[in-house]
Amino acid sequence: MSTTTTRPRVGIVGGSRSDLPLLEKARALLDELGIANELRVMSAHRTPALVDDWTTSAAERGIEVIIAGAGMAAALPGVIAARTLLPVVGLPIPSQNLGGLDALLSMVQMPRGVPVATVAIGGAENAAILAAEILALGDPDVRARLTAHREAMTRAVTEDPSSRG
Amino acid sequence: MSTTTTRPRVGIVGGSRSDLPLLEKARALLDELGIANELRVMSAHRTPALVDDWTTSAAERGIEVIIAGAGMAAALPGVIAARTLLPVVGLPIPSQNLGGLDALLSMVQMPRGVPVATVAIGGAENAAILAAEILALGDPDVRARLTAHREAMTRAVTEDPSSRG
Amino acid sequence: MSTTTTRPRVGIVGGSRSDLPLLEKARALLDELGIANELRVMSAHRTPALVDDWTTSAAERGIEVIIAGAGMAAALPGVIAARTLLPVVGLPIPSQNLGGLDALLSMVQMPRGVPVATVAIGGAENAAILAAEILALGDPDVRARLTAHREAMTRAVTEDPSSRG
Amino acid sequence: MSTTTTRPRVGIVGGSRSDLPLLEKARALLDELGIANELRVMSAHRTPALVDDWTTSAAERGIEVIIAGAGMAAALPGVIAARTLLPVVGLPIPSQNLGGLDALLSMVQMPRGVPVATVAIGGAENAAILAAEILALGDPDVRARLTAHREAMTRAVTEDPSSRG
Amino acid sequence: MSTTTTRPRVGIVGGSRSDLPLLEKARALLDELGIANELRVMSAHRTPALVDDWTTSAAERGIEVIIAGAGMAAALPGVIAARTLLPVVGLPIPSQNLGGLDALLSMVQMPRGVPVATVAIGGAENAAILAAEILALGDPDVRARLTAHREAMTRAVTEDPSSRG
Amino acid sequence: MSTTTTRPRVGIVGGSRSDLPLLEKARALLDELGIANELRVMSAHRTPALVDDWTTSAAERGIEVIIAGAGMAAALPGVIAARTLLPVVGLPIPSQNLGGLDALLSMVQMPRGVPVATVAIGGAENAAILAAEILALGDPDVRARLTAHREAMTRAVTEDPSSRG
Amino acid sequence: MSTTTTRPRVGIVGGSRSDLPLLEKARALLDELGIANELRVMSAHRTPALVDDWTTSAAERGIEVIIAGAGMAAALPGVIAARTLLPVVGLPIPSQNLGGLDALLSMVQMPRGVPVATVAIGGAENAAILAAEILALGDPDVRARLTAHREAMTRAVTEDPSSRG
Amino acid sequence: MSTTTTRPRVGIVGGSRSDLPLLEKARALLDELGIANELRVMSAHRTPALVDDWTTSAAERGIEVIIAGAGMAAALPGVIAARTLLPVVGLPIPSQNLGGLDALLSMVQMPRGVPVATVAIGGAENAAILAAEILALGDPDVRARLTAHREAMTRAVTEDPSSRG
Repeated sequence: MSTTTTRPRVGIVGGSRSDLPLLEKARALLDELGIANELRVMSAHRTPALVDDWTTSAAERGIEVIIAGAGMAAALPGVIAARTLLPVVGLPIPSQNLGGLDALLSMVQMPRGVPVATVAIGGAENAAILAAEILALGDPDVRARLTAHREAMTRAVTEDPSSRG
Repeated sequence: MSTTTTRPRVGIVGGSRSDLPLLEKARALLDELGIANELRVMSAHRTPALVDDWTTSAAERGIEVIIAGAGMAAALPGVIAARTLLPVVGLPIPSQNLGGLDALLSMVQMPRGVPVATVAIGGAENAAILAAEILALGDPDVRARLTAHREAMTRAVTEDPSSRG
Repeated sequence: MSTTTTRPRVGIVGGSRSDLPLLEKARALLDELGIANELRVMSAHRTPALVDDWTTSAAERGIEVIIAGAGMAAALPGVIAARTLLPVVGLPIPSQNLGGLDALLSMVQMPRGVPVATVAIGGAENAAILAAEILALGDPDVRARLTAHREAMTRAVTEDPSSRG
Repeated sequence: MSTTTTRPRVGIVGGSRSDLPLLEKARALLDELGIANELRVMSAHRTPALVDDWTTSAAERGIEVIIAGAGMAAALPGVIAARTLLPVVGLPIPSQNLGGLDALLSMVQMPRGVPVATVAIGGAENAAILAAEILALGDPDVRARLTAHREAMTRAVTEDPSSRG
Repeated sequence: MSTTTTRPRVGIVGGSRSDLPLLEKARALLDELGIANELRVMSAHRTPALVDDWTTSAAERGIEVIIAGAGMAAALPGVIAARTLLPVVGLPIPSQNLGGLDALLSMVQMPRGVPVATVAIGGAENAAILAAEILALGDPDVRARLTAHREAMTRAVTEDPSSRG
Repeated sequence: MSTTTTRPRVGIVGGSRSDLPLLEKARALLDELGIANELRVMSAHRTPALVDDWTTSAAERGIEVIIAGAGMAAALPGVIAARTLLPVVGLPIPSQNLGGLDALLSMVQMPRGVPVATVAIGGAENAAILAAEILALGDPDVRARLTAHREAMTRAVTEDPSSRG
Repeated sequence: MSTTTTRPRVGIVGGSRSDLPLLEKARALLDELGIANELRVMSAHRTPALVDDWTTSAAERGIEVIIAGAGMAAALPGVIAARTLLPVVGLPIPSQNLGGLDALLSMVQMPRGVPVATVAIGGAENAAILAAEILALGDPDVRARLTAHREAMTRAVTEDPSSRG
Repeated sequence: MSTTTTRPRVGIVGGSRSDLPLLEKARALLDELGIANELRVMSAHRTPALVDDWTTSAAERGIEVIIAGAGMAAALPGVIAARTLLPVVGLPIPSQNLGGLDALLSMVQMPRGVPVATVAIGGAENAAILAAEILALGDPDVRARLTAHREAMTRAVTEDPSSRG
């Protein structure tokens, strides 16, 4: 599915190049669900001005949901959430030493007023599905594709040939 | 604001009576933002049938976002998310012994396919704001009230008389 | 030992295909102890209806003890325990990032009223032995085989040639 | 219900006097379910001989399930499980400094061959219910009382007057 | 000591009003060491523009070291460090549920390129002393006062009347 | 028992005045076991010279075992162990925020070559008993008192009137 | 150095065969320090009677210090300490899932009355050195070898060719 | 850049040879920023006298900032900080079992009066940048190089070819 001729509805951002493999998984699932998206690498700590510019213009560029992945002291989702009222999905990226617990706490423990919708450590597909669930509220096509996706997932478990009496 | 004459758009559910004080905080903020809601106590472990019935009928009753609070082995948000494609916001309730770390992990570490949008331990207001952000995508009135709410919050910090040179 | 011509007394269920290697270890030990069993993959989050059906019919199909393995936000044992009064043994499956601590807490920290008998992270054999201990209360054959199994285990440690003065 | 004229079927043991308030909760629920029991304070570390004697004679005295509560380096359930093939339910007692995480890990992380059926930190009632579920497999009276207990619990949640639209 | 007629050399900022008691401890020690300072409440998440303005003008206003205290998903020190090359001292504020472990990890686990000099959870005095040690490199007066402060501290321990044979 | 006319055999040191209540418990038990001791407050971080002097002269002054209590970044036991070949018992003091886990890890995780014999968080009596066990190897009087102490402890548990059938 | 013609003074025991590589490191260092020792595999959970027999006869067979290594729910050192007044050194063995934190807490968090002198996770050499320090109190030969060992260690660090200006 | 003909301004010390790879990363960045430095291996626990000598002479030899890396019970930075008023940057070195959490807590949780400016687990470059930020306060050349370094880092993220619409 081409994602270049349509205005992106989901913005996926990651704090560093090393986050790309996980972010690509989120992107692939959004593509599969027919949701136009864009993927950017920017860092709350290393390119704060870029984060500021990208975020404050996101809504007017048509972005409806933002997925922000980051590791360690994972400030990116919160910093973005501080600059927009769009829903921000936080994706904690596992790190070598603490298994992503640092990223999870840095992301989920947001102070009153500025939530980040945090998913599992490394849960890139779930970040995409959550974004799709949000869009599906106003978009029957997305809802239909999401329904089909879940049914396929259910069938995959049910028909598992490894179950046996 | 009366929330009884309008169809509720956000369903707030909690796993036990002891979760009510936190859930009421979420409700109060939704009320303030003019978002009709309903509040129910039901338990994934103690009243599974009730959870099943309530969840599977939620969308057709007009519910658009679900906030589910639970403590300890906090299965409620995930069990609900397994039965609906509505966005489910998970609110970990702090427990006496492990400070809510058990509830947080039980909620955020969802397997691939079924996300729960988890907010901070005890972050009831943020659960409400996240729900409002989602609704605001398709509702300019909610967006306007949310914008006003954030501006008031910003002013409250900025005008803080405790800052001084 | 054939386990197909007898009605299974222990049901082993796991949340995903990736849990199978551990579940097979539990199954192998039950087989060794002569306890008929069945193994199913089903997910509290991805196939909730299947879990519901399987669980509510378990007792009448002759199942006496259920072993439920799951990882991450490991809701499966609790969700099963909510739907049956059979003893449910919870087997936390280690995950890549948090070493299974998430699964352990999601499983053991059950609310009042619905216990899960949790064993060690990755402790598949112990899940089987615990199930056998429960069955042995009413089945002298199982008790005899369990006694023999423990004696063999004790001998294996005692006769360890690596001990030396 | 008198528990003195009947042979106890469940033995409840705790590592120290300070564990008694929690153990009494387990006892009260067993009494309510009509299950004869006995309660003893003994310590794996301070009275090992007593633990040894009590445990090795438990089965012949009619004990069918053992509930062992302990805090900190909670060796008691494992030490008992090492000396009997009766199912041993481990009840981690919360401590002041680590919230019971030490007791939980000391109890649940048993090596291969000797399981302890661990319940939640401080989960005394669940220890009793788990013991009852095990006994219910061979005792229709216990099963009936357990069923009634769960139904009452379900009703208590369902009829909660705090739920409202 | 008056801190208003001198240009402040240390800027103390905290994420919320509730952080003030700890920040005041840092301020009091800076005052005692004769280091002009200013104290501001601003939030990386609730007043990002204020943080941006204050930080980017800090160096030209004469600020040499910044002390930033924050709790939970404590992004403030990192967000400031991203906008200045002044040394930023991070002070994790303990929270109710996780004892400040969330703030510590959110602050210390900064990505490559943007360090935060993190001190102990709640270690407000140490934040001030660290700032003073940095200023003392170029300011003999501060060094003299710091030396006197440490000697007094040493004497306080040495002369402790509670030591006895 | 007078501990002033005899050369102390156990040196008890604590990092700060606030550690004294726990250290006094260790001292009281040593007194009860008839083991001459001395108690000093000194800090690896605030009075390093004092620690150095006290430690390097400890053996020649007749000290045979050192008990060192400290909280947070509890360097004291390790720093002492680095300067003597006497056995050093480490007593982690619980802190407000992390429950003593910081002190435990700072003390027990010593690098190869310099052990600290660490006891439980807040386990002052056990520090004293461990010191006594070490001295008892060469002192039949201490061994006799230690034996009596353990027997009394055993009796206290055994005769507990709260055990009942 | 032959350790078979002398009565062992240090008993090294481990909970399972897989602990042997670490225990051998402790043994090698004791051999190097000229301290006769014996190494046994026995399990608090799988061979409790063997543990009981070995421990209660240890003192009369000439054992003066016991090193007990164990992993997971590491009850072995505590169970041994409950049956002897000899000093017991606990060596936590790292496990695959929780990095040895379970073994550490199971070992160090002993209740009042029965200490275990715990060393670092995997700290086999330190267990041996601690045993040697205890024996050195009454044995000038051991003290001399221990002094030489520490001096060699110091030289190894000091003469490190990797240090450079 | 030659670092031998200039007096070193930053002293880098590590607790053991195995810390050298990380310390070399800090050194390389200091070299790149034109900051003369020296690198030494010394241990708070194994060569305390060397640490004492090196630290107490550091200031007069021209050292202005000290970077101290250590793992496990990482006492080195604190022990150095106790003997100097120079700013001490603590670099926690990840260990095999606990991922560096032990080193982090042993380093950051310093008692009142003696701060250690702790950076991320394994954050060697950040230790160097923090040292450079401190020196830059009084050295326009360092400030200019630091500014250039940050701009290059920003460009590297911004121009990342992996970002795409």
